[in-house]
Amino acid sequence: MWIQKRITIRVKARGFHLITKEILDQLPEIREVEIGMLNLFIQHTSASLTINENADPTVRIDLETQINRMIPEGSEHYLHNIEGDDDMPAHIKASIFGNNLNIPIDAGKLATGTWQGIYLGEHRDHGTQRVIVATLQGLDKSV
Amino acid sequence: MWIQKRITIRVKARGFHLITKEILDQLPEIREVEIGMLNLFIQHTSASLTINENADPTVRIDLETQINRMIPEGSEHYLHNIEGDDDMPAHIKASIFGNNLNIPIDAGKLATGTWQGIYLGEHRDHGTQRVIVATLQGLDKSV
Amino acid sequence: MWIQKRITIRVKARGFHLITKEILDQLPEIREVEIGMLNLFIQHTSASLTINENADPTVRIDLETQINRMIPEGSEHYLHNIEGDDDMPAHIKASIFGNNLNIPIDAGKLATGTWQGIYLGEHRDHGTQRVIVATLQGLDKSV
Repeated sequence: MWIQKRITIRVKARGFHLITKEILDQLPEIREVEIGMLNLFIQHTSASLTINENADPTVRIDLETQINRMIPEGSEHYLHNIEGDDDMPAHIKASIFGNNLNIPIDAGKLATGTWQGIYLGEHRDHGTQRVIVATLQGLDKSV
Repeated sequence: MWIQKRITIRVKARGFHLITKEILDQLPEIREVEIGMLNLFIQHTSASLTINENADPTVRIDLETQINRMIPEGSEHYLHNIEGDDDMPAHIKASIFGNNLNIPIDAGKLATGTWQGIYLGEHRDHGTQRVIVATLQGLDKSV
Repeated sequence: MWIQKRITIRVKARGFHLITKEILDQLPEIREVEIGMLNLFIQHTSASLTINENADPTVRIDLETQINRMIPEGSEHYLHNIEGDDDMPAHIKASIFGNNLNIPIDAGKLATGTWQGIYLGEHRDHGTQRVIVATLQGLDKSV
């Protein structure tokens, strides 16, 4: 069983956002999978996907604060800055966090831990709608 | 062919640990796969999985030292610090190294390079038992 | 459908390199896949794979400049330095960017965004030929 869909994520402010529900709402097919794998692949180079704590929202704030300290804006050493000071740092963050996740599926649900949620990292000041290619494969429950 | 198992990793001290053997010992099914893929997904937000050198143990020490320099503890800017100074830095490291690996299988073995091993990054001072969901898929040798 | 191949990447200078064409030229089989997944797994611990902008080459330069600032060479705290000052920093970069990518396939093509390309990160001053295990799976177009 293979299913592939484009998922559109509503425009987000710069920073990290919990998007587990926004993803699952667009993928009811997961419920039909007995054992399988969900691949999420964001088609952009200045946004990222990662997994982190789904409870306390300060985790998202601190993650943004710390990565900004590690990859400061406005450094005079950047050559790629046509679109502004947030341009090159956004590309670097995209590669550090990564653009793809592989999440196992067990009995119709993501096999994530109790505290895990899917984060979108929006690394531009004025990000646009982001598209994620969701590819689902596995054994169908009905078989 | 799809197989999915929970693998329990014994409690580790903070830092990076070579867990290739601990993983393989719990996955004898890999030997039956002709071509395939092993997904390892750690169900925690303050531990990580990565691949690095399996020989000189100082690589693990230096990796821990350097990531601690990049993500210092006790910074007054962290809001999420209920569980101590190692709490928020552990979450950040988990997202930077990542929580899932996809390792190809070739003729019943992981298709890793000579010097590659699987690392668990334990980012808490007092980590607990860690659970990895291992999902194995591929072509069965016997077919 | 499962296909697995070793892809050899020509020796590259230290830094980030766009290798999408070099990969695709060695994987004509992608054209036969209706829906599927390409896993790229680099068998080395001092090189990495990531996805980033395929247009302006200054993105590659800035990515190298910034990661060198974050992981400086010649720090007296490294224990693993037998092969020179670039040795341990190369291992750290390999784990931060990661050694494996999963790219969805849609109608015989990689389902990457307009601006996305595959980067090889060569983290040694004098890197050697790098081997990538490419594992392709999915639904065959002819079925």
